[in-house]
Amino acid sequence: MTLQQILESVKAGSMAVADAERILKQESYDDMEYAKLDISRKERTGFAEVIYCSGKSDEHLLKIFERLYREDGEVFGTRASREQYELIRKQFPQTQYDPVSRIIKIEKQDKKRSGKVAVCCAGTADIPVAEEAAQTAEYFGTNVERIYDVGVCGVHRLFSKLDLIQSANCIVAVAGMEGALASVIGGLVSRPIIAVPTSVGYGASFHGLSALLTMINSCANGIAVVNIDNGYGAGYMATQINRIATDQ
Amino acid sequence: MTLQQILESVKAGSMAVADAERILKQESYDDMEYAKLDISRKERTGFAEVIYCSGKSDEHLLKIFERLYREDGEVFGTRASREQYELIRKQFPQTQYDPVSRIIKIEKQDKKRSGKVAVCCAGTADIPVAEEAAQTAEYFGTNVERIYDVGVCGVHRLFSKLDLIQSANCIVAVAGMEGALASVIGGLVSRPIIAVPTSVGYGASFHGLSALLTMINSCANGIAVVNIDNGYGAGYMATQINRIATDQ
Amino acid sequence: MTLQQILESVKAGSMAVADAERILKQESYDDMEYAKLDISRKERTGFAEVIYCSGKSDEHLLKIFERLYREDGEVFGTRASREQYELIRKQFPQTQYDPVSRIIKIEKQDKKRSGKVAVCCAGTADIPVAEEAAQTAEYFGTNVERIYDVGVCGVHRLFSKLDLIQSANCIVAVAGMEGALASVIGGLVSRPIIAVPTSVGYGASFHGLSALLTMINSCANGIAVVNIDNGYGAGYMATQINRIATDQ
Amino acid sequence: MTLQQILESVKAGSMAVADAERILKQESYDDMEYAKLDISRKERTGFAEVIYCSGKSDEHLLKIFERLYREDGEVFGTRASREQYELIRKQFPQTQYDPVSRIIKIEKQDKKRSGKVAVCCAGTADIPVAEEAAQTAEYFGTNVERIYDVGVCGVHRLFSKLDLIQSANCIVAVAGMEGALASVIGGLVSRPIIAVPTSVGYGASFHGLSALLTMINSCANGIAVVNIDNGYGAGYMATQINRIATDQ
Amino acid sequence: MTLQQILESVKAGSMAVADAERILKQESYDDMEYAKLDISRKERTGFAEVIYCSGKSDEHLLKIFERLYREDGEVFGTRASREQYELIRKQFPQTQYDPVSRIIKIEKQDKKRSGKVAVCCAGTADIPVAEEAAQTAEYFGTNVERIYDVGVCGVHRLFSKLDLIQSANCIVAVAGMEGALASVIGGLVSRPIIAVPTSVGYGASFHGLSALLTMINSCANGIAVVNIDNGYGAGYMATQINRIATDQ
Amino acid sequence: MTLQQILESVKAGSMAVADAERILKQESYDDMEYAKLDISRKERTGFAEVIYCSGKSDEHLLKIFERLYREDGEVFGTRASREQYELIRKQFPQTQYDPVSRIIKIEKQDKKRSGKVAVCCAGTADIPVAEEAAQTAEYFGTNVERIYDVGVCGVHRLFSKLDLIQSANCIVAVAGMEGALASVIGGLVSRPIIAVPTSVGYGASFHGLSALLTMINSCANGIAVVNIDNGYGAGYMATQINRIATDQ
Amino acid sequence: MTLQQILESVKAGSMAVADAERILKQESYDDMEYAKLDISRKERTGFAEVIYCSGKSDEHLLKIFERLYREDGEVFGTRASREQYELIRKQFPQTQYDPVSRIIKIEKQDKKRSGKVAVCCAGTADIPVAEEAAQTAEYFGTNVERIYDVGVCGVHRLFSKLDLIQSANCIVAVAGMEGALASVIGGLVSRPIIAVPTSVGYGASFHGLSALLTMINSCANGIAVVNIDNGYGAGYMATQINRIATDQ
Amino acid sequence: MTLQQILESVKAGSMAVADAERILKQESYDDMEYAKLDISRKERTGFAEVIYCSGKSDEHLLKIFERLYREDGEVFGTRASREQYELIRKQFPQTQYDPVSRIIKIEKQDKKRSGKVAVCCAGTADIPVAEEAAQTAEYFGTNVERIYDVGVCGVHRLFSKLDLIQSANCIVAVAGMEGALASVIGGLVSRPIIAVPTSVGYGASFHGLSALLTMINSCANGIAVVNIDNGYGAGYMATQINRIATDQ
Repeated sequence: MTLQQILESVKAGSMAVADAERILKQESYDDMEYAKLDISRKERTGFAEVIYCSGKSDEHLLKIFERLYREDGEVFGTRASREQYELIRKQFPQTQYDPVSRIIKIEKQDKKRSGKVAVCCAGTADIPVAEEAAQTAEYFGTNVERIYDVGVCGVHRLFSKLDLIQSANCIVAVAGMEGALASVIGGLVSRPIIAVPTSVGYGASFHGLSALLTMINSCANGIAVVNIDNGYGAGYMATQINRIATDQ
Repeated sequence: MTLQQILESVKAGSMAVADAERILKQESYDDMEYAKLDISRKERTGFAEVIYCSGKSDEHLLKIFERLYREDGEVFGTRASREQYELIRKQFPQTQYDPVSRIIKIEKQDKKRSGKVAVCCAGTADIPVAEEAAQTAEYFGTNVERIYDVGVCGVHRLFSKLDLIQSANCIVAVAGMEGALASVIGGLVSRPIIAVPTSVGYGASFHGLSALLTMINSCANGIAVVNIDNGYGAGYMATQINRIATDQ
Repeated sequence: MTLQQILESVKAGSMAVADAERILKQESYDDMEYAKLDISRKERTGFAEVIYCSGKSDEHLLKIFERLYREDGEVFGTRASREQYELIRKQFPQTQYDPVSRIIKIEKQDKKRSGKVAVCCAGTADIPVAEEAAQTAEYFGTNVERIYDVGVCGVHRLFSKLDLIQSANCIVAVAGMEGALASVIGGLVSRPIIAVPTSVGYGASFHGLSALLTMINSCANGIAVVNIDNGYGAGYMATQINRIATDQ
Repeated sequence: MTLQQILESVKAGSMAVADAERILKQESYDDMEYAKLDISRKERTGFAEVIYCSGKSDEHLLKIFERLYREDGEVFGTRASREQYELIRKQFPQTQYDPVSRIIKIEKQDKKRSGKVAVCCAGTADIPVAEEAAQTAEYFGTNVERIYDVGVCGVHRLFSKLDLIQSANCIVAVAGMEGALASVIGGLVSRPIIAVPTSVGYGASFHGLSALLTMINSCANGIAVVNIDNGYGAGYMATQINRIATDQ
Repeated sequence: MTLQQILESVKAGSMAVADAERILKQESYDDMEYAKLDISRKERTGFAEVIYCSGKSDEHLLKIFERLYREDGEVFGTRASREQYELIRKQFPQTQYDPVSRIIKIEKQDKKRSGKVAVCCAGTADIPVAEEAAQTAEYFGTNVERIYDVGVCGVHRLFSKLDLIQSANCIVAVAGMEGALASVIGGLVSRPIIAVPTSVGYGASFHGLSALLTMINSCANGIAVVNIDNGYGAGYMATQINRIATDQ
Repeated sequence: MTLQQILESVKAGSMAVADAERILKQESYDDMEYAKLDISRKERTGFAEVIYCSGKSDEHLLKIFERLYREDGEVFGTRASREQYELIRKQFPQTQYDPVSRIIKIEKQDKKRSGKVAVCCAGTADIPVAEEAAQTAEYFGTNVERIYDVGVCGVHRLFSKLDLIQSANCIVAVAGMEGALASVIGGLVSRPIIAVPTSVGYGASFHGLSALLTMINSCANGIAVVNIDNGYGAGYMATQINRIATDQ
Repeated sequence: MTLQQILESVKAGSMAVADAERILKQESYDDMEYAKLDISRKERTGFAEVIYCSGKSDEHLLKIFERLYREDGEVFGTRASREQYELIRKQFPQTQYDPVSRIIKIEKQDKKRSGKVAVCCAGTADIPVAEEAAQTAEYFGTNVERIYDVGVCGVHRLFSKLDLIQSANCIVAVAGMEGALASVIGGLVSRPIIAVPTSVGYGASFHGLSALLTMINSCANGIAVVNIDNGYGAGYMATQINRIATDQ
Repeated sequence: MTLQQILESVKAGSMAVADAERILKQESYDDMEYAKLDISRKERTGFAEVIYCSGKSDEHLLKIFERLYREDGEVFGTRASREQYELIRKQFPQTQYDPVSRIIKIEKQDKKRSGKVAVCCAGTADIPVAEEAAQTAEYFGTNVERIYDVGVCGVHRLFSKLDLIQSANCIVAVAGMEGALASVIGGLVSRPIIAVPTSVGYGASFHGLSALLTMINSCANGIAVVNIDNGYGAGYMATQINRIATDQ
């Protein structure tokens, strides 16, 4: 409903003033005292709210999990510890947990996936972040091609998978240390690349800053960067682009 | 032609060894001694090579300009000074120059634009970067909606344009100083956002670092970031996404 | 008018739907194509919009100046160059310019000032920033006590002015180099301090970063910090606090 | 007593030289060998000394706690661990401890609160810092309105609480990650904002540096910033401003 | 085989198209699902792949160890913990582990060493990094002269060993804190120096950044720098240079 | 006069209350409106106030110069431009200017020097800073031994001057780039070293930051550091130490 | 013996060539394989070698301890853990350990102290660093005046101790957080100040970087800075200056 | 001559004490008052001293140029301006100047070159630094293969030149922006790589810091890094390695 429609309804008497007030005040969230769950987010952005589990108290985590499950019949959480999984499993035995990506979820069984996103990573140590991206995209309905351990110090490994990469609607490039993977892919594809620097490395990698700067300064085009280790954000944006490609 | 097809042709004698060698060595660039123009880039990525004019010597700039014009019948250059424009205009009188975006170009006249990208910026000082993004996208065939001076310190200006923003296939959000524009838009749209930090600001803005960090750390999703002041890169990636939306 | 009142008026037919739509869409700014002047800002925040002159084109500066003068009968601009002053003076001969603070303004003559704010600075090189703070506060109706060159390396100079400082409703402490002035004042007064780091210094002062860190880490309480060289921001906030003290 | 009055008293013989010497030497602290408790601070600044518990040895903490309790009949400590609470509770069973804010205190029962300060925070992970600010303000006599989980990625949550925020004498805005909350509020209120960056975030948030830079560079006015996670400092300064509003 | 030779063989029928395709696609790695072991690396670079053990899961470490042992009959791993050693030893009892350098290896017994590299370090705390460099060089066939604890604050210790240093084909200079060792050696020798900053130090050493900057800015020539604590990289490059000297 | 003596004098009537008040309020500076000249500094610290000329307006510079000349019969200014020298020379023809150190001064003719300080620098580009240190020490009465261009990349140059260095009461070590000079000297002398990083260098020297970190992290002892390019501060402190040695 | 004297002795036959060679090669250290103990340091610098215990293996620590004890009859170690103390005490029961400064030592009983150094610190959390400085100076023969908890947020505490501070030959000023203590003392004394930034603080103190920058940028003169938390270095240099004052 | 031989000669009377003293004091430099020319450098390191022209005064530059020409009959200077060239040409008409590399030199005509070094650069803007490296290596007797504009965003350009690169004794890899060139080459060659980050780029390239971090963190081995824009240092070290290969 547009603003004009609401006002016409009020004028016509078909909508009460109080109802119009509530709609216009955008009170479309669930006030849980300590949190304000953004339950209208799916309507606005096409993505339901998820849970960033790290640092949440047991009590808060459980209540938010319950509330989101009640709303959507499925829940998706990132950065979950095994302890948090044990906690939630007691109440929701159907919960799944992947210790590599640290994703915890209850997922509806009849979901379909469409399109394709390629998730590449430079080394085996980058796999946890790559998996967070891949599983996020899958949860939100995207087919994912995983192409791991194709870092530029053995660039023939990347070239042998080039067909797979070029056939995706969007590429997620995950790399730590010097983070050069995104630049090399960038010159070889026509689709956009979401680059994810990781905190993999030591010394002057400064916990991912080096890879972040490499990716931001890429001489190749069609590359944009998300936060260090932010696999979720990359999977989310790759899904947005894939949805455009699949007319969603 | 796939590798297998090339090899079969060689075997069958329908392709000379020297020709196959040249193709497989990927010598698909124009070696100009000081530069190696990547004239196969359009084929690989869908975008012709452009010129980053800043810092190029007059002689090199002119030769590269000529070479690209000969290749494509049009040329696009960024970060051009007025002096460089005067230089090129002598030889190519049809050249256009925009002192705000500092873009120099010869553009074919029969080009069509499709789809839509929204380019938003926070303050008037961000307009040069926003225009670089907008004109890049237009050059590569994208319709652009400009929504300028909608920074978050007067957030009602942004809300009054929300319909326009939500109808785009991709949003470019340009901001300096604290760079909060991308986060606010991020929670309100379903399409991906390319965030461009600018060097606008003073003091602790550290020439765009503050805005870059803000955008990289955004609590909203669907946001990825390009380099400080990199309007070109944002316009390029927005075009990639718009092309997906328009089935190109 | 509250939202409820607007809706009741629409329902009662005393307000047209189009009028209500305009009000609720908050289109309370002046769309000048390149800029969206926030002419409702005074109503929302108590302060009219001002002009940050640095980097504005002559044409834009002049048009914004005119528009704000038409709105309020007075205009206030910061970081103005002498060239910008000469430009504006041609059209508005009553314009005043102060080369130290680089403030340009047309000010109504019958304005009153109330309350008191103390503006302190550590060295003579900090005076331009201190004056920007002082004149901002004065423009917005605050009496200002200037206490300059009272840096901590000759702390007796500060102590001899302590009575003046303690009698203000708010203190602005301006300092570059090591920026210790705010901490020393902080332990001696009961009123809040707005600390302004300046870019005065050399070497490891890193253009004000050192002073900024000193002030942010102060062991004294009642101190909050604005951007490096941001005299305007300090004068603005000091005025907010002074207005509270004088019941505005 | 002014200096002149003291000297006249000495001249008149109504004050002994030794007494005058002690007063003028400002020996108004309690020398505990390892610490010099600033027991005259309340007189100078209006706020009694509090204890920053983190890193204090058990012995020192207990002795300082005792000394301050003897002085004022109440004590306020920040950043206290549960172990420190257990230690103190043995001697002072009336001690209260809040594990969220990590505040430990003995508070007089007949204290009144006046005025109002709004404490806003962006996400649930920022609540510990927000609570430190809120409880500090309450301890020093301020009424506090808590408005939590109103981050800008779901900005309608903030707008639905705008009336509450606008009615406060001072706003404390607490946010980690990109820290954009303060800027958005800044354009909507007439009262000063104390911005508190938090260390919430990961990757390029650099333990709060990103949020700090965002807040320092805010394009909105009326915002000043305290140290990362410094809820106490924000609550203190908000109280100073609230006292001005309530004529204290 | 050159590309031309391959093509001629295909043409002549002496090589199958499928074989040529495999060679040209450079599928010269072992795809282990989670990792792509670069088993052709030795052919390309002269050095077999090694294992960076830190952060690898037990399962992955063991499988990669097995695979490399099968390939080469020897394995070399860096940054191995004692726990990882215990794990591997169960399956490969001949494995050796050095807790100082944290190197784990199975080494063939009949290997010869040639040439000479000098590994110098500034303090005893730098020895773990120096040993990683020394043992790496030895594993790859280089004689190593160890010259430890010769930091510049007692520069006579260095001078007494100058003959040894000057007789090496390459010098590895390992130092933390202020990292001045490389500069002093640099002015005294004719052979190249690989400088390794270490994370030894505290305070403003910033985990090796200070030493890294010192070495990168050296006023002496013939010095190039590897990552902080990267003994392996230094031993590798020193071996490359030593191999040149010994005509390998 | 001690506080007790002043009070006794007041009591005895031998000092007027107003005089005592003035003394105790420490109004021992000259209030020039824009500056508060600290004319009691010499009494407190043993050093008269000097002028940091850089950035001062012509009018202020001249007035402060006059005032200090009137006070002491000599004046010392640092970081003076040739234009400032021309300005002052018109009024004070006896003024001396050194374009290398950029020191401007009028110096009494009968001054004696005592003791000895050694000023060493690493390269010829460091000489301006070294001269600022040397001439400052000389102005304040210290004999100076200049030992220039003795950087560590040709360390024999330093060793050949070791006797001279060891005979000084204090050593000033000036170096840019990697700044290793102080560490090498540190292990060879028994007297304290004031280290001065300079902004000489390029690239990762970051305008002196590299040298500053090197010196702060020195593995040698007896070294303390002043600001980048702060020759004046080093000459000042070296004079303090030399005065101790010569019983001043 | 000078070089000339050694050569004359060789010529005259009164010194063997081998002996001269050993002297001139400066082999004046004890080569312990893993370490080169600098046993001639005392002769060169006036200070015996000490042990930086942190990070040393038990075996190395014990052997170095033994060796230095054999050389001098006393040993001084810094940054020692309680575990290291327990280890050493088994073999040297007379060892003393102070858990605050973390200094471990065997000290001769008949040592005298002379002169005076003042060690000031800002807060109680700075005491461990201050004690490292104080006990270092005492071990090397200096009388120490401790003046603790005199931070600038209650500056009257500092002023009440000014006589004590002014009577010292050198002042050590220890402070974390914003580190303003050194600047305030700097304007009040004639003797040199060694400033020690500490890692005390949180948030934007960046583990002592803020205090370091404050001290390096001090507007007061006569201040030089050592590394963050480097109490030992400050005590060492203060001793050097005190020895000059006491004609050692 | 070894130390033992000198001493034996003194003992035997065949060398005067004064001569031995001079040799042992290493007074092997030319003391020009303001500079100490290191004329024994060639003997020690195999490379004659060169001139870093930037920032040198005309007088000093000319005198040093003369002195080195007198010593060697040829001179090599880096970072020379055209003005400096004009100055020197007046006195030495045979001087050559290259405005791209900014190298100024007089070179002997009969010099031979041996071996081969490959100098690669990523973009045309990196050519000045690449030329400084190439011409330095040539001056010191090395054959150079130039391979320019082979950045990773069009990686086929690099592959087409791989044979040339692999045939060199050492590779210099010059790149700005994200600096990924070195890593890609690193996995393809067996010879060592000297990586040179350049200041080419904008925004978050931070004047070469991004490229420096990329290269230091390279996942490929056999790469060591020199300072930003330090073409000279890379050419120098490449020559050292090439000399080893050619048995010099």
